[in-house]
Amino acid sequence: MPVSTEWLLHCAATLAQLDAGSTASAAQLARYYDLPAPYLAKQLQALVKAGVLVATTGPTGGFRLAQPASEITLLRIVEAVGGTSPPYVCREIRQQGQGALPADECQNMCVLAEKMTEAHEAWRRSLAGVSLADIVASLPPTAPARTRSRLTSTISAAPSRPSPSAP
Amino acid sequence: MPVSTEWLLHCAATLAQLDAGSTASAAQLARYYDLPAPYLAKQLQALVKAGVLVATTGPTGGFRLAQPASEITLLRIVEAVGGTSPPYVCREIRQQGQGALPADECQNMCVLAEKMTEAHEAWRRSLAGVSLADIVASLPPTAPARTRSRLTSTISAAPSRPSPSAP
Ligand code: FES
Ligand code: FES
Repeated sequence: MPVSTEWLLHCAATLAQLDAGSTASAAQLARYYDLPAPYLAKQLQALVKAGVLVATTGPTGGFRLAQPASEITLLRIVEAVGGTSPPYVCREIRQQGQGALPADECQNMCVLAEKMTEAHEAWRRSLAGVSLADIVASLPPTAPARTRSRLTSTISAAPSRPSPSAP
Repeated sequence: MPVSTEWLLHCAATLAQLDAGSTASAAQLARYYDLPAPYLAKQLQALVKAGVLVATTGPTGGFRLAQPASEITLLRIVEAVGGTSPPYVCREIRQQGQGALPADECQNMCVLAEKMTEAHEAWRRSLAGVSLADIVASLPPTAPARTRSRLTSTISAAPSRPSPSAP
């Protein structure tokens, strides 16, 4: 799973704490979590493509959720970042070698592939059962106000170092 | 997930169809599924190390299940081959950047990491609920006899090519 999965889960949970209509830019989110802004921006676009986020343009442009937080599941975010291919791939080895089964006995999925698929579906169901609204609801009641204030704070990304030439 | 996961699931299911006390060698299993024998042998050793298989030595040596098929789950095989590390890794990004939470607010696991862990546990539970005995029970009743006969067949791995010098 890409390392950016954690980034995007957190960014989406952060956007779920904004006031309706507010946006946050890639730069703000990158600063908030100390992440590489260009790579984060690319991943945020993947979430736009997946219909999880909307990107607005203009001087106050940025990202916001494309739907109510209750309708965006963790599964959608994880699959938008990492793709939807299941981790197990069946290459039909039952049809090769000295033990090869004839094709007409292989019209149903192999029972081992079926069990691996069922496990992947159990994983998907688990993540499909949790929305961004559930995540926000589990945070301390003071979290959203704190998140908004830290996100929009004007403190620069590069902490100002005491300079010898400054008074 | 390593491509060899499919190989080892199938090899274990094959060994589960042998008569009690019988073994199959890495070469026989490789021939049965047309797999690269040296790499397969290495992976079979990983299953020995995980307590799933026993390797016997001597002229009739080979591999057999270390326990009754009803006690060997798909999860043990999959984790013996691919390792037990969960695919999602939390790097505690909640503690970094401008939004960093103080350490004393991070004594519990982050709720996002928790939900990802729950999904992984759902996947594990699904695979822990299926044993090799379940797999064998789902095969057609004629399968085990066929498997045994194909596995021990004396047909050579290299198909004999008509040679110009042969009569
Ligand atoms: S043939 Fe692929 S899992 Fe059985
Ligand atoms: S800090 Fe890692 S998932 Fe939240």
